[in-house]
Amino acid sequence: METERLQAVASRVRIDRVMERILLLAERARGEGGGVDRLAFSPLEAEGMALVAGWMQEAGLSVSYDGIGNMFGSSDGNAAGAEVTMAGSHVDSVPDGGAYDGVLGVIGAIESVEAMRAAGLKSAVPLEVVVWRCEEAAQFGQGRLGSLFFTGELSMEALRRMERADLPLAQQLERAATLRQRAEGRKLRGYLELHIEQGRRLEVGGIPIGVVTAIPGAIRWRIKLAGRADHSGATPMGMRRDALAAAAELILAVERAGMEERSHETVSTAAAIRALPGAWNVVPGSAELLTDIRGIEPESVERALNFVREQAKGIGIRRGIEITFEEATRGVPVRLDDSMAARVEQTAIALGHNAVRMPSGAGHDAQTIAHYAPVGMVFVPSIDGISHAPEEKTRPEDILAGVQVLAATWASLAG
Amino acid sequence: METERLQAVASRVRIDRVMERILLLAERARGEGGGVDRLAFSPLEAEGMALVAGWMQEAGLSVSYDGIGNMFGSSDGNAAGAEVTMAGSHVDSVPDGGAYDGVLGVIGAIESVEAMRAAGLKSAVPLEVVVWRCEEAAQFGQGRLGSLFFTGELSMEALRRMERADLPLAQQLERAATLRQRAEGRKLRGYLELHIEQGRRLEVGGIPIGVVTAIPGAIRWRIKLAGRADHSGATPMGMRRDALAAAAELILAVERAGMEERSHETVSTAAAIRALPGAWNVVPGSAELLTDIRGIEPESVERALNFVREQAKGIGIRRGIEITFEEATRGVPVRLDDSMAARVEQTAIALGHNAVRMPSGAGHDAQTIAHYAPVGMVFVPSIDGISHAPEEKTRPEDILAGVQVLAATWASLAG
Repeated sequence: METERLQAVASRVRIDRVMERILLLAERARGEGGGVDRLAFSPLEAEGMALVAGWMQEAGLSVSYDGIGNMFGSSDGNAAGAEVTMAGSHVDSVPDGGAYDGVLGVIGAIESVEAMRAAGLKSAVPLEVVVWRCEEAAQFGQGRLGSLFFTGELSMEALRRMERADLPLAQQLERAATLRQRAEGRKLRGYLELHIEQGRRLEVGGIPIGVVTAIPGAIRWRIKLAGRADHSGATPMGMRRDALAAAAELILAVERAGMEERSHETVSTAAAIRALPGAWNVVPGSAELLTDIRGIEPESVERALNFVREQAKGIGIRRGIEITFEEATRGVPVRLDDSMAARVEQTAIALGHNAVRMPSGAGHDAQTIAHYAPVGMVFVPSIDGISHAPEEKTRPEDILAGVQVLAATWASLAG
Repeated sequence: METERLQAVASRVRIDRVMERILLLAERARGEGGGVDRLAFSPLEAEGMALVAGWMQEAGLSVSYDGIGNMFGSSDGNAAGAEVTMAGSHVDSVPDGGAYDGVLGVIGAIESVEAMRAAGLKSAVPLEVVVWRCEEAAQFGQGRLGSLFFTGELSMEALRRMERADLPLAQQLERAATLRQRAEGRKLRGYLELHIEQGRRLEVGGIPIGVVTAIPGAIRWRIKLAGRADHSGATPMGMRRDALAAAAELILAVERAGMEERSHETVSTAAAIRALPGAWNVVPGSAELLTDIRGIEPESVERALNFVREQAKGIGIRRGIEITFEEATRGVPVRLDDSMAARVEQTAIALGHNAVRMPSGAGHDAQTIAHYAPVGMVFVPSIDGISHAPEEKTRPEDILAGVQVLAATWASLAG
């Protein structure tokens, strides 16, 4: 599509409306911590989805849902078998989360439809705005449930393992089993997702647009350390089997694993710890660590994992601590479509926005859809890299740039 | 006192009665975890104290209490101004604790009175069995409340700081303010305490009797680490201010501080940790460590404390983590009376029990009383060093040796 038409679409993006909607959604789900509490499957999420459904209708889209509650706003009335182009993201949040995570991609997609309409564009292929259900892992320890359901990768068995008494997800879905998964029989020409970076690379580089090349898969371990609880005063240093001291060595090994793979963009985090009994006068007898190791190069991730496992072996033998690994999640890195990345990048350049290719740090619905259709993903800077927190923020000028790139790229994709 | 009379007293110790009483007390306070749940100021403690009061009366002692609820069983009816000799310990336990901690010293002291009586000994100086209230720190973060109250070292101000809604201790004591502290105007010739070692030195050495030379003072810190919570996937390794990784370095520094002071018997423990937010996809932004450093040589303890502080400074600067120290407790090491130790040691030898001089690892009421009167303390081995746990145990033959040494030493002290 020629530069002029891309610019025409971009010029119709109304940043005031975008900001207003983002902030209204946040206001409606403000929790006690000051952040957004729009947990998946909560009443606040239902309220947020209803607001979004109204904006979809305003943009001339017809609203429908699938079995897990993914919401679609379609310019074609969702005729089965039709080829479509899609853009969207999610509106669920972590507890005490931010206003932009997910929401930006949804509001941005609706605004893109509005901008194309305002520019008088009639796309060759139908447009569909999608709100994926339960992208965050906060509820079930596994995120992207909606997009996984859509592509048929979420088995009933996996759902049953996640089942919670207060959130009987498998039960609900069994009831909804007559609703076919929407992905069936649909041809998706492409999926676009605009999202905040949730890191600091764009801000540090002074660049408004990130073109995502790949999304890492996280390997998450629950590591248990079993030593011996002893009186902290009466047990000489040489006689201890201190599970917390062993965990400390392991935490540093996890950090080192990432440091050594820095040039490959692999990151490695000891994210949580519990040590028992946790009393002033007792040498900790047991500990549990949660670790998250991820990257976009499988070989680099494997090296990091091996490094931690090897270090654990040594620590265990040296300290008389039994260390066991339980794999909670094994994500695989996903490379996004190269021609989609090129389309996003060229569009950004055509609109005069500086852009850089970069891997994502976080997981996104885009990585699920990438197994199924060509995916393009656009990042905008996060102020100070803060995300999943009430302070999460992106400058309006960067949001404008992001929505413009999304709208124009989508227009060029839909033809 | 000549060896024969010491042996006569020792021979009257009835180990069957001692074991029966220890186990009965444990049975009556067995909690859900299988251990003893006789928390200070709890109904179970009141029940235990009542049982003990009965045994005191059986031994011909008259029972009285002071303002905080220390219980005294006296052969002289507690005449004010009289010089007395005392032996005892405590009966309160940690949650899910053991059957022997404290209880052994109380039952052993009552048995000693019985043995002296059975041996036909009429002591020159009255005997007093004491049960100190609230020796364990589990309830108020500070233990030895009863003995501190007795010696006048527990201020109302300190009590008010410890005040809990469910345990209005200061309130109770204000009501009891008319009851003078029992220590006032009393002359204490000596105090003896029999206790389980709660460590493994005696067992490893195959020695039944430990003669305690000193009791360490614990310096307890609450160390707060403030870094920055960041997305664990989107934040490159070099951009992090990971509070848990910093805490891990500090945990190892705490351990090293003790290792370097091993030859001085100083021990150093990182006993508890909390890291927030503790979610798989967030680099921990803050952490809190509880540390316990103790020893009997003040210079060695000071070196260990300084080592940790210096290391923390380096860690903080290197990692961009704000580290603050809050001193929760500052105990001072107490050297026990040398002539009392010699008396205990000689008695053990006279009775044919192998004995070794050693420092205590844990804190005890004996250290409070040591400020006020000559104190002797006798240790018996803990099987596998286990204490503060349901598995806490001492072999009956070692208990017999311990009670015999206590009874005969007390007889020799009372003249």
